[in-house]
Amino acid sequence: MLNMVSRRMLLALTLAASLCASHGLRAQPQTDPLPSWTEGATKKSITDFVARVTAQGTADFVPVERRIAVFDNDGTLWTEQPFYFQLAFAIDRVKALAPKHPEWKQKQPFKGLLAGDMKAVGAAGEKGLLQIVAASHAGMTTEAFSKVVADWLVTARHPRFSQPYSEIVYQPMLELLGYLRANGFKTFIVSGGGLEFMRVFAERVYGIPPEQVVGSSGMTKFEVGSDGKPVLMKLAKMEFVDDGPGKPVGINRFIGRRPIFAFGNSDGDQQMLQWTAAGSGARFMGIVHHTDAVREYAYDRKSHVGKLDRALDEGIKRGWTIVDMKQDWKRVFAFEN
Amino acid sequence: MLNMVSRRMLLALTLAASLCASHGLRAQPQTDPLPSWTEGATKKSITDFVARVTAQGTADFVPVERRIAVFDNDGTLWTEQPFYFQLAFAIDRVKALAPKHPEWKQKQPFKGLLAGDMKAVGAAGEKGLLQIVAASHAGMTTEAFSKVVADWLVTARHPRFSQPYSEIVYQPMLELLGYLRANGFKTFIVSGGGLEFMRVFAERVYGIPPEQVVGSSGMTKFEVGSDGKPVLMKLAKMEFVDDGPGKPVGINRFIGRRPIFAFGNSDGDQQMLQWTAAGSGARFMGIVHHTDAVREYAYDRKSHVGKLDRALDEGIKRGWTIVDMKQDWKRVFAFEN
Repeated sequence: MLNMVSRRMLLALTLAASLCASHGLRAQPQTDPLPSWTEGATKKSITDFVARVTAQGTADFVPVERRIAVFDNDGTLWTEQPFYFQLAFAIDRVKALAPKHPEWKQKQPFKGLLAGDMKAVGAAGEKGLLQIVAASHAGMTTEAFSKVVADWLVTARHPRFSQPYSEIVYQPMLELLGYLRANGFKTFIVSGGGLEFMRVFAERVYGIPPEQVVGSSGMTKFEVGSDGKPVLMKLAKMEFVDDGPGKPVGINRFIGRRPIFAFGNSDGDQQMLQWTAAGSGARFMGIVHHTDAVREYAYDRKSHVGKLDRALDEGIKRGWTIVDMKQDWKRVFAFEN
Repeated sequence: MLNMVSRRMLLALTLAASLCASHGLRAQPQTDPLPSWTEGATKKSITDFVARVTAQGTADFVPVERRIAVFDNDGTLWTEQPFYFQLAFAIDRVKALAPKHPEWKQKQPFKGLLAGDMKAVGAAGEKGLLQIVAASHAGMTTEAFSKVVADWLVTARHPRFSQPYSEIVYQPMLELLGYLRANGFKTFIVSGGGLEFMRVFAERVYGIPPEQVVGSSGMTKFEVGSDGKPVLMKLAKMEFVDDGPGKPVGINRFIGRRPIFAFGNSDGDQQMLQWTAAGSGARFMGIVHHTDAVREYAYDRKSHVGKLDRALDEGIKRGWTIVDMKQDWKRVFAFEN
């Protein structure tokens, strides 16, 4: 009990300290807040930006309430290869449900998926993908869905790293999230991934609470059961796709302020980066470039997942920070050593 | 400069103190945090609830991150008579734009609106209302719209109180918002009103930042102008109606956690109150009952605006806190005295 009080007090003091820090009242930290980042221009572009916007009395100073930082998730905070983790979840979910659906054995895209024939799944096109999403993400309450995702995160393993998917997160980005928050930033996820999928782990893994997760979503419907208990049922109908030009739309809808700091890794983040860049005052735009086939994956302009082509050209042209994963990150994952 | 530093320090210390308070580490406050509330059962139901959920080591204790409080806006935080303030804005906006639209003189619902013939406007039905919304809320960028609303708030006056609309806010509810935040709650608006309309004043008036405002919204579209500058254009198409059964849907979408505290005033809030009530652990559900025709307005079951009928029955039956405005509020508006 005493121990818990002490921990709470420590938390309160840490928060108070970070508030003071955000007002420029704290002495320089004794230790490097970004230890997994190689010393160099990339790391310096981050620390210089944070120093600029938190220096009171300067033209670049940004008050705490406007220190909004947005991060893509797939390929920016966690790995997205060999395919999006949420697709891995959907596949595992279809497999788990298959015994109750004998008809799937004869019906695409389920037949192909169950037989491991991803070509047949691909041939079923967008309609097939939506059928998989409907089977794995709808027809249950929001609470039941969260439970299914939580259970999957405990049992499923990444095919290459043999770790739970929620461990395949970039240690340098975790440090960056913490560093920004210690400097008064409010950190948000703005992802093409599913809102309710990400919220299951975002708080524990990234320190980002559910109300700061922006993502794609399906429709839900309020219903009162025969027992008088209200539930939200997940329907098999998309409501919003938070990708590409949808990202500034999602930022406007959920956050209602323009970010001053944005990080992405693919062409799906280009408009979010443009939207962030177009505001007045100091801005930071960052792109994670996957250049490390040994420790993670190397891909960009020709990748089926996380294609980075036009956004890379624009980032280079406009002087955005391009993270060369191989060069700029001393460590990629916490489980490496 | 020194002064500013002192103020910032004070802010940091106040926040730190409120964090400590939320962990039960602070001594009892010396002054009443709810001075505009009459002593009695209603006020006690609020302070008792807050004491319960913030008392560490008890079964009812709720950690800070789950102290989510949601408030309806129209009729709960500010007045909604003689009609919704956002409709007053739309009418003023149509009048301001009329010189550029000579055709409106012959065309309903604009003709009726410009002539003050609200019966004709009503006769144009929902289609007519959507035309007014389209004319007043769309066809411009999100930034231009915010500017129009901000200008209107400075110039427009309420027909009865002759005050700017953003002053027609309930002093007891402002105190309640502050009291909850001082006890570690995160306060949200969940309103049928327009998201981008409310965000213009919510932070200044209620202390609620844009990212904690949930409301109805129109579609927006990301566009890059010929000057290369990206904008979000407001389209004349509804995207989401955050009212009735839409409120739990909006809460799930934007907040992603079930509130433990909810306040409304009309049947449009019934599902939000039900959704809040259905969670496990300690819960607070409150309804503002407009019973004071002298200081504000008296209306409930038969009102065209803010009808309170089924939700009142359910609230009485289930023991929710029903605020009798006349009895429970010593003062309604800050401008009263």
